[in-house]
Amino acid sequence: MKDNLIKISHGGGGLIMHRLLNEEIIPVLSDRAQTVLEDAAVLDAPGAKLAFTTDSYVVNPLFFPGGDIGKLAICGTVNDLSMRGAKPLWISVGLIIEEGFSIADLRKILKSAKKAAEEAGVAIVAGDTKVVERGKADGLFINTSGVGVIREEPLISVAKAKPGDALIINGTIGDHGIAIVTYRETFPFKVSVESDCAPLSSLVETMLASGEVHALRDPTRGGLASALNEIADASKCSIEIWEESIPVRDEVRGICEVLGLDPLGVANEGKVLAAVKSEDAEEIVSKMRSQKYGSDSCVIGKVLEGPPGEVRLATSIGSRRILTMPSGEQLPRIC
Amino acid sequence: MKDNLIKISHGGGGLIMHRLLNEEIIPVLSDRAQTVLEDAAVLDAPGAKLAFTTDSYVVNPLFFPGGDIGKLAICGTVNDLSMRGAKPLWISVGLIIEEGFSIADLRKILKSAKKAAEEAGVAIVAGDTKVVERGKADGLFINTSGVGVIREEPLISVAKAKPGDALIINGTIGDHGIAIVTYRETFPFKVSVESDCAPLSSLVETMLASGEVHALRDPTRGGLASALNEIADASKCSIEIWEESIPVRDEVRGICEVLGLDPLGVANEGKVLAAVKSEDAEEIVSKMRSQKYGSDSCVIGKVLEGPPGEVRLATSIGSRRILTMPSGEQLPRIC
Repeated sequence: MKDNLIKISHGGGGLIMHRLLNEEIIPVLSDRAQTVLEDAAVLDAPGAKLAFTTDSYVVNPLFFPGGDIGKLAICGTVNDLSMRGAKPLWISVGLIIEEGFSIADLRKILKSAKKAAEEAGVAIVAGDTKVVERGKADGLFINTSGVGVIREEPLISVAKAKPGDALIINGTIGDHGIAIVTYRETFPFKVSVESDCAPLSSLVETMLASGEVHALRDPTRGGLASALNEIADASKCSIEIWEESIPVRDEVRGICEVLGLDPLGVANEGKVLAAVKSEDAEEIVSKMRSQKYGSDSCVIGKVLEGPPGEVRLATSIGSRRILTMPSGEQLPRIC
Repeated sequence: MKDNLIKISHGGGGLIMHRLLNEEIIPVLSDRAQTVLEDAAVLDAPGAKLAFTTDSYVVNPLFFPGGDIGKLAICGTVNDLSMRGAKPLWISVGLIIEEGFSIADLRKILKSAKKAAEEAGVAIVAGDTKVVERGKADGLFINTSGVGVIREEPLISVAKAKPGDALIINGTIGDHGIAIVTYRETFPFKVSVESDCAPLSSLVETMLASGEVHALRDPTRGGLASALNEIADASKCSIEIWEESIPVRDEVRGICEVLGLDPLGVANEGKVLAAVKSEDAEEIVSKMRSQKYGSDSCVIGKVLEGPPGEVRLATSIGSRRILTMPSGEQLPRIC
């Protein structure tokens, strides 16, 4: 690394983070030379194929419209397991609490985590609590790790999108990131965007039952742009996306314009991007629309033979541009 | 809770932490009303019984004699899985890094984690990296979660110690806590205590193969005193411990006297406390002594019918006293 200190952008979900992971972290920790960054690892346990994932949550503020760090921590890990076609079953909760943190707030956050776990059908089975001195953490950080059982063969993987596949999203993008930033900062105008934070286990189950699903990705840090680039890279294909088809709330679009953000790079916490067999796309979308977190599902693009790793955006004014992986941190501490 | 703010002692491994867990955290998150605090949860996966555990590491300083946060994070989670009689197999690593942290130090810590994982025979299969602003964390926090396969039936549990069992420890106690505190603080005299931080998977495997093991506990935060009280409580029996039999290094004893600490309450990171069938104790200890991390193994007490939850210490001067659960935090940020 040219720079020898960690920067905020190293946690941003974009190119700079991927470089840190690929140059400094994964080659040291992992035995697999070319690890594809999946949302969850697959464990070959005796008698069962399991998915295993971990995520730490450092979102600021801890409470935000549409959720809090407790709900977020459960949903994020449930969704990572779902992205491998696994049924999420067991979750661990590791708390790092700053001295002086309110026990009443802790209680609220844990209740919210429990409620999300109940909705997702997962049991919280392991935990850990650490306390650090005042000023050595920022209120509360939560790590959740999760284990699920994989029943789908062949394995769903970010590397399994195939030319011809249709790309599906289950609703509006950018809601989570914009909910956080507008709540965190002071704005001269009233905004009312809620985070989309939700457990997608049931929706994904419906998708798997409705057709042939090849790749799934939850577009969190780095947004839809990162998720699309990750699928195109890992699957060694190109992707075409139709700007007009991508659902974006008017408020989100407006705030993005004011802040100079691209909604395609803003984090989501209740979205799934899927590459599915094109013949099955209509049926899958129709079944998704009957679900709580899938009512705005639609096809937003397709997978092509073209140059591996290339994502092209067909804009609403009829032009085409390359949609690159966002480089760094549009919005820090978003999850 | 009477106090409505989190205190450092809430993370100390003693009575105050247990109250937080039992009154505020576990009843909210868990479905089991009376959860015994095991080192790892047991998952009934299809075709396999698994152990699952999580721990966050906030040790200060990050590098200390005998180890660093990377080695500690792997060993701690490997050991928690081993305490359920599981073979540790898969580990996740979640990093929370403070902006401005040295990438060279990160590299050293990850290499050390990898080395410990190799020694323990576990694969690091999942990870997550978050970055927070300068001043919002203390350099680096690491969460490790782990999954292992349980092959022992009946299950080894902190609640399974039986009257008559012999209690075994695999060596000197208090080394880790004293290594950290003497390195962290400035002392007017030279000290050279190294942390005992080590992966115990292989030692525990030897123990299980050598005799009937009922309960295992790694005496980390809260030290041997907490671990003994936890076994006595969960197993609803009493325990007698012989002070003269408990191995303590002279330096550790000396520093504890200067600092007003009880070595029995000081954290260990490479120790296992075992309750085993008394007829098998000699054979188990003898096999442990042939192992790298077991050369000073010995019997230090026994399990009795007596009042449930009571731990009695037979002192070297011939008296007896009740050894209670330490109340709070002797030494903060020890792991």
